[in-house]
Amino acid sequence: MKGDSVLITGSSRGIGLQLVTQLANNSNRPATIIATARNPAALQELSKTHSGLHIATFDVSSEQSISSASEQVQSIVGNSGLNCLINNAAIGFSTNISTVTPEAMMTMFQVNTVAPLFVTKTAAARSGGMGIHRAAVINMSSVLGSITLNCGDAAKFRSYAYRTSKAALNMVTRCLAADLESSGILCMSLHPGWVRTDMGGPHADLTVEQSVSGILSVLFSLSERDHGEFLDYHGQKLQW
Amino acid sequence: MKGDSVLITGSSRGIGLQLVTQLANNSNRPATIIATARNPAALQELSKTHSGLHIATFDVSSEQSISSASEQVQSIVGNSGLNCLINNAAIGFSTNISTVTPEAMMTMFQVNTVAPLFVTKTAAARSGGMGIHRAAVINMSSVLGSITLNCGDAAKFRSYAYRTSKAALNMVTRCLAADLESSGILCMSLHPGWVRTDMGGPHADLTVEQSVSGILSVLFSLSERDHGEFLDYHGQKLQW
Repeated sequence: MKGDSVLITGSSRGIGLQLVTQLANNSNRPATIIATARNPAALQELSKTHSGLHIATFDVSSEQSISSASEQVQSIVGNSGLNCLINNAAIGFSTNISTVTPEAMMTMFQVNTVAPLFVTKTAAARSGGMGIHRAAVINMSSVLGSITLNCGDAAKFRSYAYRTSKAALNMVTRCLAADLESSGILCMSLHPGWVRTDMGGPHADLTVEQSVSGILSVLFSLSERDHGEFLDYHGQKLQW
Repeated sequence: MKGDSVLITGSSRGIGLQLVTQLANNSNRPATIIATARNPAALQELSKTHSGLHIATFDVSSEQSISSASEQVQSIVGNSGLNCLINNAAIGFSTNISTVTPEAMMTMFQVNTVAPLFVTKTAAARSGGMGIHRAAVINMSSVLGSITLNCGDAAKFRSYAYRTSKAALNMVTRCLAADLESSGILCMSLHPGWVRTDMGGPHADLTVEQSVSGILSVLFSLSERDHGEFLDYHGQKLQW
C-alpha cells in the first residue's frame, strides 16, 4: 500500500466494505484507514474493534459533502496528507436500448464519473495533501467500461448508462494521470471482476472476498509502470 | 453514401454546414438531405439553390425537439425511411484540471453523448425507419475521445469534459453497434481531424473543406468491416 493513510468511498457494503475489512485486518495495513459512505452505519461496529479506522459520512455526488469530508480528512491525516484514495462509490443498474433514459445516463455519469474526478481534485489540491511521491488514486472501474472489449459475446451484456459512465471514468483516469504525474501521484483504473454483491447479483463469478483479496495484492504491488493503466484484480492489463 | 436520404445534426456552421454543402453539390449525392440545427437560418440560402435539401429546426438536447423532428423527418422520407444519420451536433470548450466544473462535465455529456444516443434510438425505432440493410449511424467523435491515445504529447491537450463526453460517445457507438447489427444498421465513430472551425480554433491543422472532403470519401466507401469501428477522416482505424 502506498504510505500510511487510505480513504475508501462507498464502503458501507459490497467491495468497499470488504476492502475496509481486509485492509484493517492486514498485517501490512496502512496506519490510518478512512472508510466513508453516504450512510456509514454498517461500519461503526468494525471501527470499535480496529484502531486507526475512521468512519466518515460522505456523499460523493454532493459538492458540499466533498468539501466537508475534505476538512474532516485533513483533521485526521494532518500535514502528512492522504496517501491513497480509492474511488469505489458507484451505482449500477441495467439499461438496455429499450429501457435506457436520459436521466439514467446523466445520474450514472454524475455518480460514477464526475464525482470521482472532483473527489480526487479536492484531495489532490489540499495543502499537505496527495502531492507526495508515490501517493495513489485508484478509480474502481469495470471491464464493462472497456470500449475495445465491448464486442462479440462480451457485448451481450447491455448497459448503456453503466458502460458509458465507466468508459468516461477511464478517460478521467488518463486525464488525471497526465495532470498529477508531476506531483508523483499514481493514477489508475481497476476492474474488480464480476462479484457477487448487490450490484453484481447472485450469478457473478467471484465472492467479494476473492475479488478484494486480488485487489489488495494488486494495490500492494503497484509501481510506476502501472501509472495511467487499467488493471484487473489479477493485475492483468486491460484494453481501454 | 448509404441510400437515398441523410440527416445531419448541427449543420448551421463548421463541419456540419460544410458536410451539407459538399453533399448537396456531389454528383453522387443522396436524393434527400435533411440539414438540421438549433438555429438553421444559415441554411435557408443553400436550400433555395439545391433541390432535395430540407431544413429543420432541431435541438438534439431537447427530448421534445427529438420527438417533433422525428415526425418531420418521417413526413419527408416516408416509408422508405432514413438511410443515414450523422450525429454531428456537439459543443466543446476547454476544461483543464483547474477550470473544469461539474456543470461543464454534465452539459457536455448531455449534448455530446446522451443526445446522439436518443436521436439514434428515436430514428431507429420509427416504423419504416433505419431498420433496412446498409443504413448507417455516424457518430462524429474525436481523437480526443481516444482513451488509449491520451498519453505522452497527445495528453498535453487537457479537456476533461470534452474528452470524457467523446470517450462515452465511443462507448455509445459500440453499444449501438451490438444492438443494431441485427437490423442491418452500420454504426461507427468518426474523427474529422483538427479543423479550423469555431470549435477547433484558428491554429488547427485542416480547413473545413479538407476535413469534409476526407469524411465524404470515408462515408462513400463504408462497408461492413467498418461496423463498430473508429475511423479518422482518412479512413484510418483509431484505437479506442
